Amino acid sequence: MSHASNLPTPALTPPYVAVIFTSLRPLGVDDGYDAAAEAIARLATTQPGYLGMDSVRDPATGLGITVAYWRDEEAVIAWRDQEEHAAARVEGRARWYDAFSLHVAKVERSYDFTRG
Amino acid sequence: MSHASNLPTPALTPPYVAVIFTSLRPLGVDDGYDAAAEAIARLATTQPGYLGMDSVRDPATGLGITVAYWRDEEAVIAWRDQEEHAAARVEGRARWYDAFSLHVAKVERSYDFTRG
Repeated sequence: MSHASNLPTPALTPPYVAVIFTSLRPLGVDDGYDAAAEAIARLATTQPGYLGMDSVRDPATGLGITVAYWRDEEAVIAWRDQEEHAAARVEGRARWYDAFSLHVAKVERSYDFTRG
Repeated sequence: MSHASNLPTPALTPPYVAVIFTSLRPLGVDDGYDAAAEAIARLATTQPGYLGMDSVRDPATGLGITVAYWRDEEAVIAWRDQEEHAAARVEGRARWYDAFSLHVAKVERSYDFTRG
């Protein structure tokens, strides 16, 4: 599962689950978000069924997309209910995000490309 | 389907299909990518079954994620085979991307949040 941190998570073998989290952050606000987001991302990598994660935010617009890949629905639910993660989500609604949407999806096919 | 351009695509009613495209661009290269990507994104919005799209790239790392939402698999295939889009994908492998991965997934649930 490990790859150079800048590279996209490679193609995986379906079926697996993608959790797509798209969010809008207020601009120019230091509210503890960066450190918390990094801690939660690190915690995710230690959870059962974790397959990979890609996360990007454009600092100019505040829009970010994080996609986490999990082995199955059970892993997604366990991560949803994980204590620190659940507490972080409360903060997210309380102050970190102006808006977000989440889509949970079963991946049916995947491919990748790396320049030779 | 329209929403303020900075806001995440809102939750939609499952089932629908998410196409997750994660890519790494070389840094500091002006190779016609930005104009082409904008044109292709505009073209996507005119295709049958298009539901929405979110796209973010971090200019500091070159990593980007685009998620497009489609009504069904038929819409995904039609867009894959659309002429200008197929031509752009050839350019992508030839010069625009150092690496990418693509995951096609059926969305099973979705929710969203907007600060009141």
